[in-house]
Amino acid sequence: MPNPSFQPVSGFDLPRFAGVPSFMRLPHIQKGDKLYSDVEIGLVGVPWDGGTTNRPGARHGPRQLRDYSTMIRAVHPVSHLKPFELCNCADLGDVPPNPADLMASLDRVSTFYSQLKDDGITPLTAGGDHLISLPILRGLAKDGPVGMIHFDAHTDLFNEYFGGTKYTHGTPFRRAIEEELLDPRRVIQIGIRGTMYDGEDIEFGRANGVTILMIEDLMERGFADVMAQARDVVGKQPTYCSFDIDFIDPSQAPGTGTPEIGGPDTYTAQRLVREMRGLNLIGADLVEVSPPFDPSGQTAWVGVSIMFEILCILAESHRARLG
Amino acid sequence: MPNPSFQPVSGFDLPRFAGVPSFMRLPHIQKGDKLYSDVEIGLVGVPWDGGTTNRPGARHGPRQLRDYSTMIRAVHPVSHLKPFELCNCADLGDVPPNPADLMASLDRVSTFYSQLKDDGITPLTAGGDHLISLPILRGLAKDGPVGMIHFDAHTDLFNEYFGGTKYTHGTPFRRAIEEELLDPRRVIQIGIRGTMYDGEDIEFGRANGVTILMIEDLMERGFADVMAQARDVVGKQPTYCSFDIDFIDPSQAPGTGTPEIGGPDTYTAQRLVREMRGLNLIGADLVEVSPPFDPSGQTAWVGVSIMFEILCILAESHRARLG
Amino acid sequence: MPNPSFQPVSGFDLPRFAGVPSFMRLPHIQKGDKLYSDVEIGLVGVPWDGGTTNRPGARHGPRQLRDYSTMIRAVHPVSHLKPFELCNCADLGDVPPNPADLMASLDRVSTFYSQLKDDGITPLTAGGDHLISLPILRGLAKDGPVGMIHFDAHTDLFNEYFGGTKYTHGTPFRRAIEEELLDPRRVIQIGIRGTMYDGEDIEFGRANGVTILMIEDLMERGFADVMAQARDVVGKQPTYCSFDIDFIDPSQAPGTGTPEIGGPDTYTAQRLVREMRGLNLIGADLVEVSPPFDPSGQTAWVGVSIMFEILCILAESHRARLG
Amino acid sequence: MPNPSFQPVSGFDLPRFAGVPSFMRLPHIQKGDKLYSDVEIGLVGVPWDGGTTNRPGARHGPRQLRDYSTMIRAVHPVSHLKPFELCNCADLGDVPPNPADLMASLDRVSTFYSQLKDDGITPLTAGGDHLISLPILRGLAKDGPVGMIHFDAHTDLFNEYFGGTKYTHGTPFRRAIEEELLDPRRVIQIGIRGTMYDGEDIEFGRANGVTILMIEDLMERGFADVMAQARDVVGKQPTYCSFDIDFIDPSQAPGTGTPEIGGPDTYTAQRLVREMRGLNLIGADLVEVSPPFDPSGQTAWVGVSIMFEILCILAESHRARLG
Amino acid sequence: MPNPSFQPVSGFDLPRFAGVPSFMRLPHIQKGDKLYSDVEIGLVGVPWDGGTTNRPGARHGPRQLRDYSTMIRAVHPVSHLKPFELCNCADLGDVPPNPADLMASLDRVSTFYSQLKDDGITPLTAGGDHLISLPILRGLAKDGPVGMIHFDAHTDLFNEYFGGTKYTHGTPFRRAIEEELLDPRRVIQIGIRGTMYDGEDIEFGRANGVTILMIEDLMERGFADVMAQARDVVGKQPTYCSFDIDFIDPSQAPGTGTPEIGGPDTYTAQRLVREMRGLNLIGADLVEVSPPFDPSGQTAWVGVSIMFEILCILAESHRARLG
Amino acid sequence: MPNPSFQPVSGFDLPRFAGVPSFMRLPHIQKGDKLYSDVEIGLVGVPWDGGTTNRPGARHGPRQLRDYSTMIRAVHPVSHLKPFELCNCADLGDVPPNPADLMASLDRVSTFYSQLKDDGITPLTAGGDHLISLPILRGLAKDGPVGMIHFDAHTDLFNEYFGGTKYTHGTPFRRAIEEELLDPRRVIQIGIRGTMYDGEDIEFGRANGVTILMIEDLMERGFADVMAQARDVVGKQPTYCSFDIDFIDPSQAPGTGTPEIGGPDTYTAQRLVREMRGLNLIGADLVEVSPPFDPSGQTAWVGVSIMFEILCILAESHRARLG
Repeated sequence: MPNPSFQPVSGFDLPRFAGVPSFMRLPHIQKGDKLYSDVEIGLVGVPWDGGTTNRPGARHGPRQLRDYSTMIRAVHPVSHLKPFELCNCADLGDVPPNPADLMASLDRVSTFYSQLKDDGITPLTAGGDHLISLPILRGLAKDGPVGMIHFDAHTDLFNEYFGGTKYTHGTPFRRAIEEELLDPRRVIQIGIRGTMYDGEDIEFGRANGVTILMIEDLMERGFADVMAQARDVVGKQPTYCSFDIDFIDPSQAPGTGTPEIGGPDTYTAQRLVREMRGLNLIGADLVEVSPPFDPSGQTAWVGVSIMFEILCILAESHRARLG
Repeated sequence: MPNPSFQPVSGFDLPRFAGVPSFMRLPHIQKGDKLYSDVEIGLVGVPWDGGTTNRPGARHGPRQLRDYSTMIRAVHPVSHLKPFELCNCADLGDVPPNPADLMASLDRVSTFYSQLKDDGITPLTAGGDHLISLPILRGLAKDGPVGMIHFDAHTDLFNEYFGGTKYTHGTPFRRAIEEELLDPRRVIQIGIRGTMYDGEDIEFGRANGVTILMIEDLMERGFADVMAQARDVVGKQPTYCSFDIDFIDPSQAPGTGTPEIGGPDTYTAQRLVREMRGLNLIGADLVEVSPPFDPSGQTAWVGVSIMFEILCILAESHRARLG
Repeated sequence: MPNPSFQPVSGFDLPRFAGVPSFMRLPHIQKGDKLYSDVEIGLVGVPWDGGTTNRPGARHGPRQLRDYSTMIRAVHPVSHLKPFELCNCADLGDVPPNPADLMASLDRVSTFYSQLKDDGITPLTAGGDHLISLPILRGLAKDGPVGMIHFDAHTDLFNEYFGGTKYTHGTPFRRAIEEELLDPRRVIQIGIRGTMYDGEDIEFGRANGVTILMIEDLMERGFADVMAQARDVVGKQPTYCSFDIDFIDPSQAPGTGTPEIGGPDTYTAQRLVREMRGLNLIGADLVEVSPPFDPSGQTAWVGVSIMFEILCILAESHRARLG
Repeated sequence: MPNPSFQPVSGFDLPRFAGVPSFMRLPHIQKGDKLYSDVEIGLVGVPWDGGTTNRPGARHGPRQLRDYSTMIRAVHPVSHLKPFELCNCADLGDVPPNPADLMASLDRVSTFYSQLKDDGITPLTAGGDHLISLPILRGLAKDGPVGMIHFDAHTDLFNEYFGGTKYTHGTPFRRAIEEELLDPRRVIQIGIRGTMYDGEDIEFGRANGVTILMIEDLMERGFADVMAQARDVVGKQPTYCSFDIDFIDPSQAPGTGTPEIGGPDTYTAQRLVREMRGLNLIGADLVEVSPPFDPSGQTAWVGVSIMFEILCILAESHRARLG
Repeated sequence: MPNPSFQPVSGFDLPRFAGVPSFMRLPHIQKGDKLYSDVEIGLVGVPWDGGTTNRPGARHGPRQLRDYSTMIRAVHPVSHLKPFELCNCADLGDVPPNPADLMASLDRVSTFYSQLKDDGITPLTAGGDHLISLPILRGLAKDGPVGMIHFDAHTDLFNEYFGGTKYTHGTPFRRAIEEELLDPRRVIQIGIRGTMYDGEDIEFGRANGVTILMIEDLMERGFADVMAQARDVVGKQPTYCSFDIDFIDPSQAPGTGTPEIGGPDTYTAQRLVREMRGLNLIGADLVEVSPPFDPSGQTAWVGVSIMFEILCILAESHRARLG
Repeated sequence: MPNPSFQPVSGFDLPRFAGVPSFMRLPHIQKGDKLYSDVEIGLVGVPWDGGTTNRPGARHGPRQLRDYSTMIRAVHPVSHLKPFELCNCADLGDVPPNPADLMASLDRVSTFYSQLKDDGITPLTAGGDHLISLPILRGLAKDGPVGMIHFDAHTDLFNEYFGGTKYTHGTPFRRAIEEELLDPRRVIQIGIRGTMYDGEDIEFGRANGVTILMIEDLMERGFADVMAQARDVVGKQPTYCSFDIDFIDPSQAPGTGTPEIGGPDTYTAQRLVREMRGLNLIGADLVEVSPPFDPSGQTAWVGVSIMFEILCILAESHRARLG
């Protein structure tokens, strides 16, 4: 029976435009609160864009995602999954970053997620730029490398920028592989496109065993075929999902820092995510929503709609891990 | 021979940005005017959003739709239908609503459309939120239930909101079925998607014989197959068409109150509408364009482009009914 | 000594873009919560625009005002008042409206504020359209009429709209005077301007003793002189303050439904509010912020900055009443 | 007694967002219509920007000005003038321009206004870029030069652009003086500011007797003193008023092609216009509103508000000329 | 070995938001500069919209396209072509137009391109409205007619507008065929759609041998089949490519003057352009980007991304012509 | 006689919307270019926002400021100063920052400005967030502390943020005083306002001799009186001018990260700057323009207009120093 303390406010009781906006209208709970120990899935914001090399603003992502998330209802239209009944879900607030200190901020994030792991909470994160996936993985993969399904227009496997800078939103997965947080043979990247610097990122990835699918692969093979391969790549072991909003075509998600034209639409994105059902998903993030580049909120609405799709999978995975 | 009194101003004579903007640059005629008795198809605005449960603004729809409609030309690019030559078309102005009195406004709308029916005028309506379809149907279906082809992301078959409210933009077709304005077995809904409250609306619809196609049905089967089914469902009897702009993906029609991602594109929408050719269409509406959420006018441009597609079908139907 | 449970989160601890946005980063407390009985000043949202006769959207006001209120700091720059140390302030959430039922919504609001009065809480409200001031006054003035300082471009003293409609955002103070919630001889209106229907509203007001100052009075006499008169008009008895954002020039506060050019700037607005210091202020509202007409948030930022100015006055008044 | 055929639709009968938008909700009348011969003041659009040397879009001005003009009510708040009762006012539609043929368009405009003069109609024009004032003056001043009160950030007295081009929106009044449409000793320009090419325009103007007041003159002397001088300059003979929206500070009227910071606010603009009362005003224009640079409509709202102020003066002047 | 003087600034050295924005961060070189004689491919702006019949603003296209072009990197993601290594590419600045003199501007453009042809430079042009293709062709095809692959929603084969105007952005290719700049049998138009005036443009085109493919042809046959036909139509002789941004659906490229719904997405556009590989391309343009209708820059980003796709083809063609 | 190599392109020759946008259409010159040694005044961009504690985007400032600066003409309207004739002015490009490395970026800026000082070039800088003033002063004040006239809503005299962070856009002048780059007794701050953390910044400043004027001082005393004091404070010794765009009211300059209502208008800002004439100005900056928060460019237009006002003063100062 669903826990009444963890049900979102219904739009039939309080109109969707009303109320203090927590993620999906869930209770806002912080470590130390009475209900904290019952939380199973934690929605967390990481308001950070210090790793952004071009257009900033992702630090404002969690705020706008929360705002638009109040339009999310309770039941999945196709699978009929009810994540808020499957697990106790809560908004755990934001990890406090220091916008003027990159390394300190990474530490704060990894500490926060390490604690979540210790507390048995499965996290669904709203970014923030893509650099945040690195400290999240440091927290979640402290026991050993995990697999990853990565939706993105870019590999984020670059080595360095600006003559030696190792930590930017273009490098998290290079670092994660080096730090053995990710098992590259269990990593698949889907949707890569856009003009290239020199291709060294792709060479590195493939040389290390990462499966990299260009957008043409997705468009020609279709979502079902691509995701069958993804399920093969990651297998049944613990797997993380990282979803960069710039995976989706910028006409549908313009509020992001590094748009690349020729991307898939949201329908395809939804179908791809749904095909992760049954995997052993231990966490996920939705990153790179930059509200200043889309004050209309359209991108945030896409983002939280995808977050709900992922949440359904995560809730089932969490339940399954509990046996 | 086309009636010169009912031809739109040509963009070759007066640039499209010039002039007082009536619908499609047609003559603005009101009951009592000399030309009124010759009108065959009436374009009508219903500037109303009092039934809106979340984001308002559809009251401003007719104004912005008129503005963008001055970019519409005279001939259909594929069918080569010329609606303004087939029928005498006119802008009949707006039904005056009372923004602070819901029930009075519904009455004004039903009175207006009942009169149109008596006057033999086939209406093409620009909304307004979706609640307006109810009083329109009260006017048009006063002799008996009609069929309906309904393009929308939502069923609008809910029973009530906010603990007992029966009249909102989420309930018009529940009421219309209860009031026997619609024959549910002759109703088809296309494009349903988005997170659900509990699914009771769909259960009610299907239990009463409504054909409900989810977006996945449309995407997998294609427009031709779906519309073949639609034609079977409605048959040759009088049929209404209701087109909610949120049927179309919000990246293409962002100016609406309840967007749902993963929708069809405008090309698909055009192909769907064209497949209604030959049906006995007695009226149609295009609703839920909310200009404050799209000051760019892109949504209104989509809306009037779809209205022109529908107008071609309506004009042929009207002509056919006259024998 | 300030109560640590009621201090806003500092921007030095958590950046201003981070966290779940309650009003001014205060604790979000609802009736039934442990801390509720210690609340002295309650910040309340009334997300409602059902009384709006032209451009809607004020229902979204409280959400956007909360968002921008996270940029407010703790100390007044001129008076050096520290409202969060003077009183226990909290965000009490939103009164739940029913967007499709005007009379039911008015009842919900008056019930809520009547309860606040019983609980000894001084309310500072974020609207919502101006009609909400009526049910707020029904709650706060149930023991007898109060005075009012009213900043607005419009008198809101109209009798009816649309042939008989008595409750719109243009009529609240006509009703409040009729219901003896306001003592018209203790009411002053400042900033009136814009084209007029017929002036009947002004005639009614003046005939009943309301002091109505046109914008020319303010511009020619200056803020100090006008507010000296205002203090005379309201005296030492209980006084309400209603601040319509359209008082301010639309270039500075464009996000509102009924803008009138030729208004005062925000500097003048701040100076006016500060001159209320020492009055017996029992509550206040800031209304008519309509986010869809200003997605930039500039208007909301003006609104919450004015709310902070008022809060300083309210906190001192509340403290003074406690002796 | 006011002529009922020429009264605007009231916002108490039909909400301001409803209906086909003619100027100030007046009847839309064209030459040949039955009511045309009763028209005394004609509101006319000249949708033209072919003379624009930098940012275009003023061709869209009349459309957006009509849209926002539906928020204008019937009575002036200070003078209590009722222009629609003083004179029969009507929307005469737009002069049809040819956007790709400058000289042909000028001819169409001068022909139109020459006809208005013959028909005894006093015109109030919505532009369009400032070049349109030239052909308007060719129509209105065909019997001899007139005076002019000119509100603008620029003199528009340049000789030529781009190596010999004589007709741009920077040259109309140079040409008008050369063509003896304006009597330069009866011309005053108010509000001039912004970086200069070389000052030759000002030298020409002053050498020919034009009174040119820089913005510093206005700011330091105030509206009353400046307008006393203006009344002296133009005297009691026929006078035209040309109001370039860029006279007003761009923060209040951003939608224009050549903004200059440091301008007056709308309150000052209103006070200036009101001081024209009693002059022999034979026509006026409001130009350079460019909607693409202000989709919010704020500039258009300022524009029509100023148009109403001017209309009050024009109506009284027209009435006075009839004796 | 690539010429170091012609390499774009790398985003690894200077962040993409920094620096004076030339096209693709290439050197800005003008005739007379030392490096001019080494230029092989010239990127040129033609900031002009004097031929626009409805919504202007394309004069601002080159500026915004330059701005967004700084996000383009150096290598094509699929073909791995490196245009900046294949040829010496440079930004040649803008052709200076006279916004108030149409015929003079056409002459300036044709003179500029005639010179480029004499200098052996292959041009890639950023418009400007579509009329600019006519003087460009006058320069490039002075030795005899060329073929053309034309991506557009409109044929631009109209004869005249506004009762006799021969030169607008709707007529360039009618004129180019009449002037024997284009060989109509070697011209293919792809993507035609939208409501029609009367179809005379299409009749003229087909009667003269132009291959005109409606959008339905493209959607049903796919990019590969359509481009196979295109390659057959133009053959191996010199061919121009004209890409009107309104070819792409307005949801993806809203910043344009004459949008038509139901268009292809950017992925399809990219695939179409890539199929031109191997043709004898002598120049190309990307026109009708109108920044005032898309201040977000999304359309410009689409535009420069397509320009890069075309540049890869052009560079290979130029190299091939040199043997 | 003015040096022809350093004259901006005239808008009479090339329309203002055309061409590659350098600052004020001046030549773009880099160290190593032939003309570099003749440069007297260098306009420099510092595209940086790594010190921003709330809303980012100032890294995009120089680009947008360059874009709008092409609307600046050559002569001051009141003083008739011609800066481009007084000195050889050039656009020196941007200092390349590293967006992910704060300390490295500060070093690059100070190195750049130290070199300018050595080269005898007086810099006028376009930021960037306010932290950039620190490394600029490190370059310019390496010989000893300078005075400063500082226009801003904030003191930027804070000690640290986020528990110990010393370098943010709120701390540059605390650091500059500590590092003896500024002589605090020769520093005046004008326009301070907005809610305060605790006032420690003001206490520090005043304790060290800084003259801090609140906005009320400016509004009540007027620009002339305040600037007389400013001239007294800084005297005849070398003085820097730092102009934070948030000094100006956010209704006039909304595109900035930390707006405070109740600020002065642009007219006042212009008058204030003009009163610096005759001072020994050795450099200046205009900072905190954040384009993502004002895509309209209005803020950038204000910014470059103020930059031109300052440039006139700088040019006269530079000339005077040369004797």
